[in-house]
Amino acid sequence: MKTTTVAIVGASGYSGQELVRLLLRHPQVALTCFTSRQYAGKAVGDVFPRFRGLTDAKFVEPDPDKLNADAVFLALPHGVAAEFAKPLLAKGVKVLDLSADFRLRSAAVYKEFYEHEHPAPELLAQAVYGLPELYRAQIKRAQLIACPGCYPTSVLLGVAPALKHGLIKPASIVASSMSGVSGAGRKAAEDFLFCECNESARAYGIPKHRHLSEIEQEISVMAGQPVVINFIPHLIPLNRGIETTIVADLAAPAGDVLALYRDFYKGEPFVRVTSALPDTKNVAMSNYCDVSVRVDPRTQRLLVSSVIDNLTKGAAGQALQCFNLVCGYDETLGLLA
Amino acid sequence: MKTTTVAIVGASGYSGQELVRLLLRHPQVALTCFTSRQYAGKAVGDVFPRFRGLTDAKFVEPDPDKLNADAVFLALPHGVAAEFAKPLLAKGVKVLDLSADFRLRSAAVYKEFYEHEHPAPELLAQAVYGLPELYRAQIKRAQLIACPGCYPTSVLLGVAPALKHGLIKPASIVASSMSGVSGAGRKAAEDFLFCECNESARAYGIPKHRHLSEIEQEISVMAGQPVVINFIPHLIPLNRGIETTIVADLAAPAGDVLALYRDFYKGEPFVRVTSALPDTKNVAMSNYCDVSVRVDPRTQRLLVSSVIDNLTKGAAGQALQCFNLVCGYDETLGLLA
Amino acid sequence: MKTTTVAIVGASGYSGQELVRLLLRHPQVALTCFTSRQYAGKAVGDVFPRFRGLTDAKFVEPDPDKLNADAVFLALPHGVAAEFAKPLLAKGVKVLDLSADFRLRSAAVYKEFYEHEHPAPELLAQAVYGLPELYRAQIKRAQLIACPGCYPTSVLLGVAPALKHGLIKPASIVASSMSGVSGAGRKAAEDFLFCECNESARAYGIPKHRHLSEIEQEISVMAGQPVVINFIPHLIPLNRGIETTIVADLAAPAGDVLALYRDFYKGEPFVRVTSALPDTKNVAMSNYCDVSVRVDPRTQRLLVSSVIDNLTKGAAGQALQCFNLVCGYDETLGLLA
Amino acid sequence: MKTTTVAIVGASGYSGQELVRLLLRHPQVALTCFTSRQYAGKAVGDVFPRFRGLTDAKFVEPDPDKLNADAVFLALPHGVAAEFAKPLLAKGVKVLDLSADFRLRSAAVYKEFYEHEHPAPELLAQAVYGLPELYRAQIKRAQLIACPGCYPTSVLLGVAPALKHGLIKPASIVASSMSGVSGAGRKAAEDFLFCECNESARAYGIPKHRHLSEIEQEISVMAGQPVVINFIPHLIPLNRGIETTIVADLAAPAGDVLALYRDFYKGEPFVRVTSALPDTKNVAMSNYCDVSVRVDPRTQRLLVSSVIDNLTKGAAGQALQCFNLVCGYDETLGLLA
Repeated sequence: MKTTTVAIVGASGYSGQELVRLLLRHPQVALTCFTSRQYAGKAVGDVFPRFRGLTDAKFVEPDPDKLNADAVFLALPHGVAAEFAKPLLAKGVKVLDLSADFRLRSAAVYKEFYEHEHPAPELLAQAVYGLPELYRAQIKRAQLIACPGCYPTSVLLGVAPALKHGLIKPASIVASSMSGVSGAGRKAAEDFLFCECNESARAYGIPKHRHLSEIEQEISVMAGQPVVINFIPHLIPLNRGIETTIVADLAAPAGDVLALYRDFYKGEPFVRVTSALPDTKNVAMSNYCDVSVRVDPRTQRLLVSSVIDNLTKGAAGQALQCFNLVCGYDETLGLLA
Repeated sequence: MKTTTVAIVGASGYSGQELVRLLLRHPQVALTCFTSRQYAGKAVGDVFPRFRGLTDAKFVEPDPDKLNADAVFLALPHGVAAEFAKPLLAKGVKVLDLSADFRLRSAAVYKEFYEHEHPAPELLAQAVYGLPELYRAQIKRAQLIACPGCYPTSVLLGVAPALKHGLIKPASIVASSMSGVSGAGRKAAEDFLFCECNESARAYGIPKHRHLSEIEQEISVMAGQPVVINFIPHLIPLNRGIETTIVADLAAPAGDVLALYRDFYKGEPFVRVTSALPDTKNVAMSNYCDVSVRVDPRTQRLLVSSVIDNLTKGAAGQALQCFNLVCGYDETLGLLA
Repeated sequence: MKTTTVAIVGASGYSGQELVRLLLRHPQVALTCFTSRQYAGKAVGDVFPRFRGLTDAKFVEPDPDKLNADAVFLALPHGVAAEFAKPLLAKGVKVLDLSADFRLRSAAVYKEFYEHEHPAPELLAQAVYGLPELYRAQIKRAQLIACPGCYPTSVLLGVAPALKHGLIKPASIVASSMSGVSGAGRKAAEDFLFCECNESARAYGIPKHRHLSEIEQEISVMAGQPVVINFIPHLIPLNRGIETTIVADLAAPAGDVLALYRDFYKGEPFVRVTSALPDTKNVAMSNYCDVSVRVDPRTQRLLVSSVIDNLTKGAAGQALQCFNLVCGYDETLGLLA
Repeated sequence: MKTTTVAIVGASGYSGQELVRLLLRHPQVALTCFTSRQYAGKAVGDVFPRFRGLTDAKFVEPDPDKLNADAVFLALPHGVAAEFAKPLLAKGVKVLDLSADFRLRSAAVYKEFYEHEHPAPELLAQAVYGLPELYRAQIKRAQLIACPGCYPTSVLLGVAPALKHGLIKPASIVASSMSGVSGAGRKAAEDFLFCECNESARAYGIPKHRHLSEIEQEISVMAGQPVVINFIPHLIPLNRGIETTIVADLAAPAGDVLALYRDFYKGEPFVRVTSALPDTKNVAMSNYCDVSVRVDPRTQRLLVSSVIDNLTKGAAGQALQCFNLVCGYDETLGLLA
């Protein structure tokens, strides 16, 4: 099988580092470039000692004109990513964007949630939402993949079977998530110091967290109608992991919902439907999403719990899963174990 | 002011230790007895070195006939507590029970949720639910106080203003909580080992956690009608703390809900209504409950977040607050700072 | 008993917040001023919600000319503290300095370890090292107290009995400490982000950490000769707490060393000598130092383990203990429980 | 390359689970058997959901007569392991024992430290201490590998270059380690509950921890004379990781010690000598040992810091490294990334 040359742009944040970890062990990838404005000129293994011995590469300044790779992963802030994607797409490079820039179909919704004009609205039509469980066929033939946010991945995989089977009332959905602190990114800010996060748990960003925009977009697609819902994120003292609990009113008599979920995800390599309620520790550093469901006969509601590693299935791992699809590799290559 | 003699029965669990911590520094309490079957004969300060220097007492076997105290705090498992309370009540002792035995007005509901017959149904009528913000007047003249569970305290203080003002539809309530591991008690079990809980987050006990019974009972009282709701507890890697997020459909146009909450809790010594969303770390080792609210105009729902320390306001601190009321002390004595 | 008016200069760092916590509950203190450059004009309870309801004060700009208090606690960076102390001392105010500025008797050693000229060498002679267990008499009559560093407190209380009895060879001392992350202060820096410190343990600052200077100064005083030793700090994922392990060659046959330590600290209100090895959790949020000792007959060495809360006995609590001594209050006032 | 059939005996403890994780992804291993008395009959993926999807195997009762494998990893308690090894060795099976049973050359020392008779002293002569950096040649031709303890691995790799070059005085060595809680094993005991370990740090097991026996044995071999030292373990709130700090008196003028260490470990696939002090997080879930050194010119001592993951290089990873050597595979197979 042929090797694909790959560049990581923005390799020093937490998602970027996770890309480095996964791509270094991918058997068909030749990593040609790691960019970091902050660390340009330094060895990757000096800045991040966990990679010492695994690569001799140095960080370079990000420069789209100098990138020479078949595929590029962008782990950049929103707004910046789109600017970077433009010249790469023009050169025919495959782009896997981990930012929010290409996730929304509507530039207006983007502006509403991200509070600036979309930097490249002309590209939105060609972008594919990189959730393989919902868009596998489109991903395979895409050039520009908009990798989903971490929260949306956990919410959408949790509701998809129920929504697609008409089992729940879409507008009744309430999704509540708890995220590890790596979700806040690797930026020096008092709020994310160890002593501020340890022994701390709190809700934030309600009622209109940015990720709500893509959650509602995809729920609306599945529901076949515009839907607004509630999404409530919380910060908890973990490094990695998201647990999402979804509650929704049943729209129809619930039969064996666990069987329905198992059937929906049959053959999916990275979704495990379990009878026991899932735990983030079981998906840490893996690309799995574990899901379980309960029906409450007293309230006639469906309860779903899903867990992912926010940096793997919620970011870099899912991007790599999409990369495998785009390049024609086995979807799980480099992602199991 | 006169001193009250006090015994702690079951002083070696986490709630029991918190009672020891708080009662040792209460200026009007003379602690006459600490019982522990496991540690009888050992010095409290040898078993729990944090108390060394603060007390010279030894644990004794629990024996209701030998307890000599004006007031007794019971930190025992449900079922056991009621048996203990009976002779104490007969002797005229004031009983502050931290177990679930006297929280439910109905022995049938108790049996449904706790899966055994109620051990003393004849005492239920005289028990007062020890949530001072809702039952202060009754607590003052009670002999038997049923101290609320930790989750119910956080849920009920979160919904009370909205429910009592008819602002939300009772049956639409969904309460989702995250608790520190001390909530599971101090019992040797693999599930609560450090390595099983650290870097782990998970839902559990749905859809019918035992605390749901008292939550629904008190919500039904406030709503003036029988109500069933959803309550979803989660375990997260904290020692202490509960955050509860409540979502409910608005029943009426929401005005200034924050002002309404502030007004409702005006004068309450232990509820702080804040504009910022609360954080468990700000109530750790204190008897405060911090609450904030948001209205989502898109979904017409009310969102409430409340936090407590599960061992203090959620257990021992609230019991002491009730004790102060029962004994005629200032309600905050020994509980501020 | 008369009240003392007190100002806290630099009340927004971790030591500053701990001063606020302790001073707010001190029965003879009237807090007249909290300074913070960063938060001037904001309510203390808005910036640090844990203090909401306990004080209505606002932070003000630090200005020595406007401070009106009998005693001032300085929780400022080294270098800055000395400048602040000068005018206060001139006005007759009692100064409790938590910085390193007045801990060293030699301006030359200060320059060697802190890498700038001492800002007020003329004041060094009048400063008293605020470790009550060693300097109680001098503290009582001092105007300027140099509160010891957190690491030095744990090391010096660990070695004092052995050194003063000539039990160990001073130059053989190796002290190894593990500290919680609050010891690094509340500054936004990538190294102290939650995800960088959680699941991480590392040595740092060897062989010449700044605290070594005061450790060696005081060990030399006790040994009656100049001594250099090794001190090895480590950072571990705790909020609060320091454990220090000391190893030294025996200089004389060891008898009952535990009894010797107990005797040495007999009557000390804040040192607890225990037969079991101490644990940081037992001194968290308290002013205690717990110490235990072992003799290794195979190597003829003494092993000592001591633990403190770095923010309490290691900073604010010890400063308050000194304050009590200086003001003639009971030494434990506001510090027990 | 030919596949090797492998059994894991005692697959449900923390070392056992780490063996499962590593062996499942080893390209030349066919796992034929996972034993667990506790879970016999249950699917591995049901008991440990992290392995769901990676194996369909079930746990079976451990029975040496029914084990059918070319190589067997024993992750059993000491005492039990030796009994299990006997019949396997007799059948010609290669045995990688993770217990302490075959680490000591002297049955008398074993009895002194483990407090029972050695169960198979006749096998001690053929056992090889499985530290590849010291015994690679012997491991390659061994049938019985005694995999080193976690603490000894970190201590011995830290001192080996200095000792072998006569740079330090052997009897002056003091090794102080901090370990994550997984080192205590997966047993239900109050001491290792989350709330007892979180926000806790403490020394334990001094002066004569069991691992001291193998540390002294191997240091004595390197020093060419019997040596007793001090080893001081500490428990800190990590899941995985050991940091060991070693202090020793210089025996000779120290030149460029870092270069000496780099030279000593040149070509070693799993030891990384770094100029920066190492951090456990950089070796988590990897087989690396990171080491750095400092010379203190004031005290003429050498300071070494080494870090490993106690479950990987400290247990299962090192066992697999030995397995690769024994089987003639590349030493790093299945262990990088």
